[in-house]
Amino acid sequence: MLENKDQSRTSLSQLGEFGLIEHLTKNFTISQESTLKSIGDDAAVLNFGDKKAVISTDLLVEGVHFDLAYMPLKHLGYKAVVANISDICAMNATPTQITVSVAVSNRFPLEALEELFEGITLASKIYNVDVIGGDTTSSQKGLIISITAIGEANLEDIVYRNGAKENDLLVVSGDIGAAYMGLQVLEREKQVFQVNPNNQPVLDDYTYLIERQLKPEARTDIKELLAKLEVKPTAMIDISDGLSSEILHLCKQSNVGCNLYEEKI
Amino acid sequence: MLENKDQSRTSLSQLGEFGLIEHLTKNFTISQESTLKSIGDDAAVLNFGDKKAVISTDLLVEGVHFDLAYMPLKHLGYKAVVANISDICAMNATPTQITVSVAVSNRFPLEALEELFEGITLASKIYNVDVIGGDTTSSQKGLIISITAIGEANLEDIVYRNGAKENDLLVVSGDIGAAYMGLQVLEREKQVFQVNPNNQPVLDDYTYLIERQLKPEARTDIKELLAKLEVKPTAMIDISDGLSSEILHLCKQSNVGCNLYEEKI
Repeated sequence: MLENKDQSRTSLSQLGEFGLIEHLTKNFTISQESTLKSIGDDAAVLNFGDKKAVISTDLLVEGVHFDLAYMPLKHLGYKAVVANISDICAMNATPTQITVSVAVSNRFPLEALEELFEGITLASKIYNVDVIGGDTTSSQKGLIISITAIGEANLEDIVYRNGAKENDLLVVSGDIGAAYMGLQVLEREKQVFQVNPNNQPVLDDYTYLIERQLKPEARTDIKELLAKLEVKPTAMIDISDGLSSEILHLCKQSNVGCNLYEEKI
Repeated sequence: MLENKDQSRTSLSQLGEFGLIEHLTKNFTISQESTLKSIGDDAAVLNFGDKKAVISTDLLVEGVHFDLAYMPLKHLGYKAVVANISDICAMNATPTQITVSVAVSNRFPLEALEELFEGITLASKIYNVDVIGGDTTSSQKGLIISITAIGEANLEDIVYRNGAKENDLLVVSGDIGAAYMGLQVLEREKQVFQVNPNNQPVLDDYTYLIERQLKPEARTDIKELLAKLEVKPTAMIDISDGLSSEILHLCKQSNVGCNLYEEKI
């Protein structure tokens, strides 16, 4: 009946997200011939034949990744799909299929799920990906979405994070920061609304920023553009946590440093 | 400022899980040539070359799918992997890779996640599958696990749910009901413990049942057995919700009925 009350407990925040992932995955080994690329890039690469399969997965939790106070469910469904497709694009591959799993608490009526799936369906049509499976279950609290995206590519076209070389030029495929600013606007208007629910949010001046936050698009056009220009980048990465964080990943994995010119962004 | 307060709200329980899935997925269409089989079986089947890729995904939520009061985290990690591998086996395919996504609330220290990943690592070693990706994030409440399993098979070996024919023999690959009885025992002992925490659970007589509940195994041996016997079943399905529920799926999709002989189970 003696219990060791002195068990060591390490809080997750001490490690940070990337430290945690590194720590938890360090015992994983690769034994399958078909695994060409495992953990550590925007997506894994698998070999089942001529075309290689590229796979990426995301887990989105209400209150952590999205706030239904200003995120309409249809937009959320759309964005969840697009975020995963973007990971496939960052491998210079073509997205082809997704699986969609959803857990909801009993506060969600059918109509809420219908709205969510409207957004998912719309994104899958626009980006020409098939929804091939998933899981639907209950949660104890809030909405949870897990999406796995699958893409295809010829082996010679796939671009990893770790190929950057000295003297390479660093290029960003769009403007950056708009989605973050859109989030700031929405958070501010939410607070105004909470103080006085009769205040209607004033968003007209921020349409572009808010659209970048609520309805982002994946850059499937970049693969085509690169093919047309006959350019194969030495390294590619999806920007999700911000430029500086992603540059660090890319440099660390490629074993190079880099100079960023603020005035050219 | 006029709001329609009379919006119709349909509770999810009115539809049931399968009705809900049917309802939400009815707008999904297939446009990719590489999608050979989509929603509606134990796994989807994709065509990227000689070998076909088979994909299945599960979302597990604390308090819904598992109870950490009697489910050790290492067992949970093991079981979560095995449950997905079992879906791949039910397609008569060989499991090759998995992705593992985890969301945890701040009540979980690093040591808890380490235990969970020990179970995941053990299962991936025993079943020879590579962990190729995933996502690690926070949750507002409890532990959430999302696993996607990938397998490979020759097209001619894959067995779907919908191929059963008249006069086919229905065969179960193991005994059934043990995991459910193990759960009953654990639930009972949990209640005893809650009444008086000094009562230690009495589980010695139920080792087999509890092992089937806490540490189930996937039947990767069945594919080999069938190959050795040179038997290709007309239909296969993973039993997760119980025999009667799965028989209904199989019969409905195969458009046949069936007789079950209780004394032969």
